[in-house]
Amino acid sequence: MPSPKPFIHDDFLLTTPSARELYHGYAETMPIIDYHCHLPPAEIAGDQRWSDIAEVWLGGDHYKWRQMRSNGFAERLCSGRGPDGCASGWERFEAYAKTMERLVGNPLFDWSHLELARYFGVSERLCGASAARIYEQCNAKLREEWFSARGLMKKSNVKVVCTTDDPDDDLRYHREIAENPFGVKVLPAWRPDRILKEAVANGTDPMVHLAERHQYFEANGCKVSDYGLVDIPESGRYADLLFECLKLDAAAGWTTQLHFNCIRNLNSKMFGLIGPDTGFDAIGCADSALGLAKLFDRLESADALPRCILYSLNPRDNEMLASVMGSFQKGPERGKIQLGAAWWFLDQKDGMRRQLETLSALGSLGNFVGMLTDSRSFLSYTRHEYFRRLLCQKLGEEIEKGELPYDLEWLGGIVRDISFNNARDYFGFE
Amino acid sequence: MPSPKPFIHDDFLLTTPSARELYHGYAETMPIIDYHCHLPPAEIAGDQRWSDIAEVWLGGDHYKWRQMRSNGFAERLCSGRGPDGCASGWERFEAYAKTMERLVGNPLFDWSHLELARYFGVSERLCGASAARIYEQCNAKLREEWFSARGLMKKSNVKVVCTTDDPDDDLRYHREIAENPFGVKVLPAWRPDRILKEAVANGTDPMVHLAERHQYFEANGCKVSDYGLVDIPESGRYADLLFECLKLDAAAGWTTQLHFNCIRNLNSKMFGLIGPDTGFDAIGCADSALGLAKLFDRLESADALPRCILYSLNPRDNEMLASVMGSFQKGPERGKIQLGAAWWFLDQKDGMRRQLETLSALGSLGNFVGMLTDSRSFLSYTRHEYFRRLLCQKLGEEIEKGELPYDLEWLGGIVRDISFNNARDYFGFE
Amino acid sequence: MPSPKPFIHDDFLLTTPSARELYHGYAETMPIIDYHCHLPPAEIAGDQRWSDIAEVWLGGDHYKWRQMRSNGFAERLCSGRGPDGCASGWERFEAYAKTMERLVGNPLFDWSHLELARYFGVSERLCGASAARIYEQCNAKLREEWFSARGLMKKSNVKVVCTTDDPDDDLRYHREIAENPFGVKVLPAWRPDRILKEAVANGTDPMVHLAERHQYFEANGCKVSDYGLVDIPESGRYADLLFECLKLDAAAGWTTQLHFNCIRNLNSKMFGLIGPDTGFDAIGCADSALGLAKLFDRLESADALPRCILYSLNPRDNEMLASVMGSFQKGPERGKIQLGAAWWFLDQKDGMRRQLETLSALGSLGNFVGMLTDSRSFLSYTRHEYFRRLLCQKLGEEIEKGELPYDLEWLGGIVRDISFNNARDYFGFE
Repeated sequence: MPSPKPFIHDDFLLTTPSARELYHGYAETMPIIDYHCHLPPAEIAGDQRWSDIAEVWLGGDHYKWRQMRSNGFAERLCSGRGPDGCASGWERFEAYAKTMERLVGNPLFDWSHLELARYFGVSERLCGASAARIYEQCNAKLREEWFSARGLMKKSNVKVVCTTDDPDDDLRYHREIAENPFGVKVLPAWRPDRILKEAVANGTDPMVHLAERHQYFEANGCKVSDYGLVDIPESGRYADLLFECLKLDAAAGWTTQLHFNCIRNLNSKMFGLIGPDTGFDAIGCADSALGLAKLFDRLESADALPRCILYSLNPRDNEMLASVMGSFQKGPERGKIQLGAAWWFLDQKDGMRRQLETLSALGSLGNFVGMLTDSRSFLSYTRHEYFRRLLCQKLGEEIEKGELPYDLEWLGGIVRDISFNNARDYFGFE
Repeated sequence: MPSPKPFIHDDFLLTTPSARELYHGYAETMPIIDYHCHLPPAEIAGDQRWSDIAEVWLGGDHYKWRQMRSNGFAERLCSGRGPDGCASGWERFEAYAKTMERLVGNPLFDWSHLELARYFGVSERLCGASAARIYEQCNAKLREEWFSARGLMKKSNVKVVCTTDDPDDDLRYHREIAENPFGVKVLPAWRPDRILKEAVANGTDPMVHLAERHQYFEANGCKVSDYGLVDIPESGRYADLLFECLKLDAAAGWTTQLHFNCIRNLNSKMFGLIGPDTGFDAIGCADSALGLAKLFDRLESADALPRCILYSLNPRDNEMLASVMGSFQKGPERGKIQLGAAWWFLDQKDGMRRQLETLSALGSLGNFVGMLTDSRSFLSYTRHEYFRRLLCQKLGEEIEKGELPYDLEWLGGIVRDISFNNARDYFGFE
Repeated sequence: MPSPKPFIHDDFLLTTPSARELYHGYAETMPIIDYHCHLPPAEIAGDQRWSDIAEVWLGGDHYKWRQMRSNGFAERLCSGRGPDGCASGWERFEAYAKTMERLVGNPLFDWSHLELARYFGVSERLCGASAARIYEQCNAKLREEWFSARGLMKKSNVKVVCTTDDPDDDLRYHREIAENPFGVKVLPAWRPDRILKEAVANGTDPMVHLAERHQYFEANGCKVSDYGLVDIPESGRYADLLFECLKLDAAAGWTTQLHFNCIRNLNSKMFGLIGPDTGFDAIGCADSALGLAKLFDRLESADALPRCILYSLNPRDNEMLASVMGSFQKGPERGKIQLGAAWWFLDQKDGMRRQLETLSALGSLGNFVGMLTDSRSFLSYTRHEYFRRLLCQKLGEEIEKGELPYDLEWLGGIVRDISFNNARDYFGFE
């Protein structure tokens, strides 16, 4: 019989002695490197504060909006951006609390309760009946001195974050933060999607401009680039530009991230009403095997293949990716090409487990650079905890089943590497 | 050590205390809504009876024929429709019993034993050695007074069934049943595949005729439509007709079902000998992501997107479907777009588990409208039991692992909703 | 708490009483039929010996090279075929030992330790620290009298192996072996890839030549053909040649194997340096559903469909394959069309489990012809042991969960069939 203890507790998701020892003895205290997120640098520079949990949770989180819509709530309670305006913070919070009652097994259920437990000291299950109590408790917590952007990052033991920035960004906030350090490195990351799209549309050549901005970003500490793609084309203008961009990344010693198989803005009506990034995107089914292989082959032939992390939004691509990646590994780098952590719609138990399973079976799990938040929220560092618990649980279960040797020192070292050391060494932070 | 109890017992498939409490305390006694099946209305109207278990089991079940063929049995023992004629009931039953010996882990093994236990009181394992005994026992049972189409439906606690009907059907049997009610609502469902296919082939416009028939079906209680498709095309005549048909469904307040990624009649030789629906179909690999997104976008832009249930026969589509569906959810409906229950070749443990897992991770499990039989047999209601056991086992395992809170009242309510309440409310039955 | 026993022990991978009884009582002692491998016939004829474990393990194993590259080791330590030459045996072995430290959950970890345990008596975990000890121990073992190609095959209880041969091969080594029998049947297998590719490139007709060589192979005991394909085309020259080839196979009563969804030689630079089959291949995403269905339909219509085993390198094809295959099963053969064992990149726990799961759910597990090594190494027979343990573990777990009846005699018979009897009967060996 399960005990009546709260949902989130010390051994949350850890069911074997080995899993618990791996987590508490090795993973738990490792710092965080969040090498891909969407935090607004201005909010870090200004040390943002909030007065209402609804603002924090529902201000920009399209994951939550989607589930609220699917539970029948009107747009004024979800994004609050439609023609009917925005409901009050309490009304929206209560709608979300009621939505939670139906989200059995959804990552939002776990993430929300982790955030409530870790940052707000709430251990109750969030539902319609508990909503008012929890709303007050959270709002009181938000008024505490330490509860700010920087306070949350420090409390979460974050060492480095990489934001997501347009090449034309002047990086003023990054410079401002660098001039007033607070113990967390905040680095820009290069995301030239807009410029590439415009160049393809207009038939112009963006590379001279991009090379110049690339240098500017490098001078400001950038070490990571990121490309958002529907698919990886085998040829054509986009393939050529991607090739040129990755050459820049390789020359600068950056790590390239490729995010693909996402189809965006499917709902024209809602797009017309509230714009992009509001929860109307989905997983695509494009076949990028040959496109990816050709891109890598072209770069490798030019001695210009950068370190690269591959993220497909469709989990059915995992095995293909892990095997293509294995054809371009090369010393002296360790794990030069990486199968990226489960992403967006896949950033949940099943998605993470499948990523870890495929990486183990086809690659070298010990070299994995691990988790990132991909988030716009300062509360999302609990996703690192979530990931580490799942990782330790996986290893612990395999030890119990005799699928891995019972050698916690060795496996604990691997856990530490995946939690922090690998990312530090791979990206060249510190 | 497992106990020597029979394969099918009270706690079949339920291995944790929570799973057992959820099943016996919440799921077991809920009535059944079978919102998609292929029962012949004439057999309900006439309260069909059978004198031979071979007739019941092997008269039209192409699932069984396929496995019998793969176990080397001649067509006269399988469908009995080939040029060599049909073997005797006993010969065919014995061949199936021997086939069962090889079907380790196949859903037919579970379903057959569930049907033997629930409707025939048989607890032995069916195999060559037990075949004769079981054959007699079943045939004796078939002669009992209650053992008829209607008797089986009542015994199975069925409240509503929706058959599958051609728009040109006069629905005489549905009318006959409605005039002589027996406690189970038998409603027609709209399946215009034949008419759409002919219209595309002949270049004619079927919409005036279909609109008229749609009204006739509505007048006879129809609330559900169903479309069988190879894929969901992005454009072309078929895409346009589908758009028009779904507008009709939306206007009538019906729920639309889209079944796709099936490739049919692959074996020309057997098709020539015994025709369609005899076990020569398979799972397709078409990519319907954009087709589906465009169809929904067009409808939503026209304020004419009906409630819709999506069924792909290829499980690798699950994540794509759950994410496209999330882009078109809209209040005030709850779970307006649904990821359909695992279907046909996927209507088995792995298929069901994956559907539940994806739905949990990407959607709102609590709003799921649950199981259907998709069957031609009056014995298939055990599939609802099978599904409910798997659902309760999943939730129970997650509770034991700490992945869900130990709150059986809350989760039991969800189980009841998925078993019955959600379907009742969603389709608007009662 | 796991016991401190060695990683490989009697009950390796067997966690339930039923699993252990199935493995030790039924699977363990069954002989091996290795119906698809890449052993060089010359090495069997010459009863090859080795003086260095590095030669055995790293001489030609591109699985290992890939992982060593991904762990940062230079090519001279991996394949040893690049422009920088080849490192010493000890240096390469040590590099592999260090690589093993990162391969958590990779099949190489399990296979290597199984080989160390079964053939070299080593029970330590291989890592940098133990490398020197194990290197010496293995090399000493290699000097023992029995440690030769034939000795390993006899020790492994192998009854039949089918090599992989070009149609123009004179089969002299097979003839030599047949004239000096040693208790293991060594049969040629027909792999016309090169000839088909040349014929398509040159527009010539290879069928007269192939038919003649087919007879020669048949006269030398060949019973199996094998085709390596990117995809299965729906039409065109390749589709036609495939059709003709399978007719030859059917006429001779052979079993055809189709291996597909592999994309090869992705890394041009490395291909230029060290050639093919060196670890630069990957899983493809081609859709072969209709191609396969059409090929089979054409053959069945011509009464010329041979027994056939289907292997896709992409696990997302499993369900499609199992369902297409079900449309072409036909008596009096049992399991005429087979879903092949998990292959190459998929020849690991997750890949095997998924193959077994899909085969159970959609087909008739009891008729499965089971495992093969697909290997160039005489040590790879441990893969049969690995497979059998996973099979018994799967069945044992299902028994414990009540998903299968607790009837070990019946299931043990199935285990024996899958381990040996099915292959013997299916291919017509003995």
